[in-house]
Amino acid sequence: MTLKFITGNPNKFREAKQILGNVEKIAMELPEIQEINAKKIIEYKLQEAMKTQKGEFFCEDTSLYINSLNGLPGPLIKWFLESMKTEGIYRMASFSSDRSATAKTIIGYTNRNEIRYFEGKIDGEIVAPKGETNFGWDPIFLPKGYMKTFAQMTPEEKNEISMRKKALTKLKDYLESRK
Amino acid sequence: MTLKFITGNPNKFREAKQILGNVEKIAMELPEIQEINAKKIIEYKLQEAMKTQKGEFFCEDTSLYINSLNGLPGPLIKWFLESMKTEGIYRMASFSSDRSATAKTIIGYTNRNEIRYFEGKIDGEIVAPKGETNFGWDPIFLPKGYMKTFAQMTPEEKNEISMRKKALTKLKDYLESRK
Repeated sequence: MTLKFITGNPNKFREAKQILGNVEKIAMELPEIQEINAKKIIEYKLQEAMKTQKGEFFCEDTSLYINSLNGLPGPLIKWFLESMKTEGIYRMASFSSDRSATAKTIIGYTNRNEIRYFEGKIDGEIVAPKGETNFGWDPIFLPKGYMKTFAQMTPEEKNEISMRKKALTKLKDYLESRK
Repeated sequence: MTLKFITGNPNKFREAKQILGNVEKIAMELPEIQEINAKKIIEYKLQEAMKTQKGEFFCEDTSLYINSLNGLPGPLIKWFLESMKTEGIYRMASFSSDRSATAKTIIGYTNRNEIRYFEGKIDGEIVAPKGETNFGWDPIFLPKGYMKTFAQMTPEEKNEISMRKKALTKLKDYLESRK
């Protein structure tokens, strides 16, 4: 049975395919409940998907957690970007001298019997926007130990160290361990 | 037919009863979709409620919109409070010299044929927390022209000027205009 990835994002799908190999894309719009706990958002989506989808599938949440904001925006990042753009989030985070943040991907996988979560994260800090602005909060996230924001890296450089790759690799290891 | 108010909040219900008279409380848990547009959140709730409820009913959203944050937190206020408390929201708003904010209640009413919205708002500013901390963001909201935060007012003082009263009064006027 082919594993399915529920996502509307072609870049995320491409990355998953590179790591997992045999994956199919399901582009279904799933309601996103108002929650700050990413696992609950994922759980709700998977339960909605189970109403129509068979087999094994997964979805993911990738969010930015700013420490001085006690973990905000987290899954609310979409609304922060819509309201304030990266520049505004940078200014908001600047009220504190602690600019540390974590980028985290959580994958929720289900075979319809149970849900399993796989996490990947990368620490960094919030900086003034630098680089291409085409991908969400990438311009304001500087990964620890690097001199470039995510937006200044090539897709290959970013994917090599990304939180999403770490989570996908854990999912892959789990799937292989069952064989 | 008795009008019904979908709310889990006894204070909100009491206030509605004082203004509208004949109201019944329905305490049903409705899913809150992740949205920054309060009307969309309300619309979704009403549509969910229509699946099981008959007659006429309404629900409301009361949120705090901070101008320097381009209207955030808005309906996300719950998560801002959970993550940062009033003190943290005050500090966050303090990165700008513009501390102006608007407290807004939006009521969504339906008779199952259509949805109508009624808004009430009050302008003010974000200040360091003052007063009882038992009701959400009341300690950091100082209404324009007053010397006390919402949390420093008695419930009667607050209800007299509140955004919720303004919205409820508009709903009442509408209901009476149809008679």
